[in-house]
Amino acid sequence: MNRLIERDQLIEEWLYEAAKISKKSFEQTISVEEKTTRTDLVTNIDKKIEQFFIEKISTYFPGERVLGEESSKYPFTDLKGTVWIIDPIDGTLNFVKQKSDFAIMIGIYENGIGYLGYVYDVMRDELYSAAKNQGAYLNGEQLERVEDIPLREGLVAISHRLMTNENSDEARRIGRASSGVRMIGSAGLETTRVATGKLVAYIGASLAPWDIAAGKIIAEELGLIYTQLNGEIIDMLCHNKTVVATPSAHKEIIKNFK
Amino acid sequence: MNRLIERDQLIEEWLYEAAKISKKSFEQTISVEEKTTRTDLVTNIDKKIEQFFIEKISTYFPGERVLGEESSKYPFTDLKGTVWIIDPIDGTLNFVKQKSDFAIMIGIYENGIGYLGYVYDVMRDELYSAAKNQGAYLNGEQLERVEDIPLREGLVAISHRLMTNENSDEARRIGRASSGVRMIGSAGLETTRVATGKLVAYIGASLAPWDIAAGKIIAEELGLIYTQLNGEIIDMLCHNKTVVATPSAHKEIIKNFK
Repeated sequence: MNRLIERDQLIEEWLYEAAKISKKSFEQTISVEEKTTRTDLVTNIDKKIEQFFIEKISTYFPGERVLGEESSKYPFTDLKGTVWIIDPIDGTLNFVKQKSDFAIMIGIYENGIGYLGYVYDVMRDELYSAAKNQGAYLNGEQLERVEDIPLREGLVAISHRLMTNENSDEARRIGRASSGVRMIGSAGLETTRVATGKLVAYIGASLAPWDIAAGKIIAEELGLIYTQLNGEIIDMLCHNKTVVATPSAHKEIIKNFK
Repeated sequence: MNRLIERDQLIEEWLYEAAKISKKSFEQTISVEEKTTRTDLVTNIDKKIEQFFIEKISTYFPGERVLGEESSKYPFTDLKGTVWIIDPIDGTLNFVKQKSDFAIMIGIYENGIGYLGYVYDVMRDELYSAAKNQGAYLNGEQLERVEDIPLREGLVAISHRLMTNENSDEARRIGRASSGVRMIGSAGLETTRVATGKLVAYIGASLAPWDIAAGKIIAEELGLIYTQLNGEIIDMLCHNKTVVATPSAHKEIIKNFK
C-alpha cells in the first residue's frame, strides 16, 4: 500500500509538471503535423510530454513498459507485467484550436488489469484519479457512485465521426432518445463527465488503448459500464468502438448497435 | 456616453447578482417543468432571475420594454423604442443536468438596432460584453477581431436538433467539411466561442430572439457574420435558423442551405 501511495504522489507531481509544459506552449508557436488525416493531429507538445513521462518512468520504475500515443516504436502484442498507457494530450484538436478541453491521461495496468487511472483536465485544473477497488477522486475528494439514470433523462456525448458519417442512423437515433447530444472532442473529458453524472453516456467511434485506459478505471470504480459498442469487453491491444454509460443507458445503447 | 457607462455598470452588477442566484440554487432542489417538449425545460430559477431583471429595469429604466424568455405575457410585434431582450438561463438543460455550460444573457436594442450585449458564462466567471461600434470585451479586456479562418480549418458547433434529425444531411456534410463538430448546448456559449476564435461557426436550429440578441452584438463587433441559415438577416420577432461564423465559413455554410 505504501508503494501505491508513493507511486500515486509521483504521478500527480508529473501530471502537474506536464500540464505546465502544455500551458506554457500557448505563449509559443505550436508545431502541428497531420498523422493519418487532416483532423488527426500531433504537435511538438504531445511528443515533448510523452517523452517527459517516458524518461520519468524509466528512471523511477525501470523495466516497466510504456504504451504511448506518440511512441509508435513501442508496438504491443500483450499486456504482461506493469504497463503504463499514456495519452500526453487527449483532444489534440481542442488543444490546437481552442486552447482548452484537453486532458493528460495515464493508466497503469498489471497483466491487463487496470489499477491506477488519471485524467487531468488541465485548463479547469481538475484531476480525476482512481485506484482499483479504492474509489475515484476529483482533486482528492472522493466521488460518489453514479446514479443509474436512463438514457431518456440524460445528456449523451457521441464522437464526431459517428455523428457525421453518412451511415449515422444509430447514433442519431440514440441522440434523439436522450435529453440531448453534447460533443466535447476529448474521450477523457467525456468519460469524466459521465463519471460525475453530467452525462449518462459517451460513445466513441474508434478509441485507442491510450484514449480508454485511464478513464475506464475511473468509470468502473463509480459503477459505470465500459465496453465495446456491441457489449463485448474492451480489447486493450487495438482500437475499439466504445460506450461508457450508466447501467441503464448502457443496456439501451448496446441494444441499438447489436 | 456617461449614460451608457452608467447603464453598463448597473447591468454588470445585476448580472453578477443573478449569477449568485443561479449558483445558490445548486444547494437546493431545483423545480423543473417541461415547456413544449421533454427537452425544453424551465426551472423556478429561470423565472426568478427573469423576474429579478424585470424589477430592476422597471425601477431604473421605467418605460423601457422587456422581451424575456419566460414572460410569455409580453408578446412583441415590433421593436420600437428601447427593448431589453433577456435570457435568464441560456442552456437550461445544461444548468439542470450539468450545473455548468449555461449563460445569463442581456441584449438591449434601440428601434431594432442592437447597442449593448452581455453573455455571462457563470461557472467560468467569463463576462462577454459589447457596445455597438465600441468593440467587444471579456472581463473588461478588449477582444481582438476574429481571424477569417475557413470552415475546413476550424471546429464548428451545430445544434442537437439539426444533427440528430432524420433529415440532417446538410448539417453532417458541414460537420465533415470542418475540422470537427462540437456541441455545447448553449447558444450564448457557442457564439462566444466563435467570438474568441475557438470555433469558426455555430449553427442553430431554431433560435428565439433571447437566444440571439446579446451574442449577435458581440459577434458583429468582432467582424463575424450573424444571419439566418439561408443568408437573410435575422428577424428579431420570431424564431430563426441561424449561423454565426467567420466571413469565409459563413459563405461556405449558407451555400449548403440555400
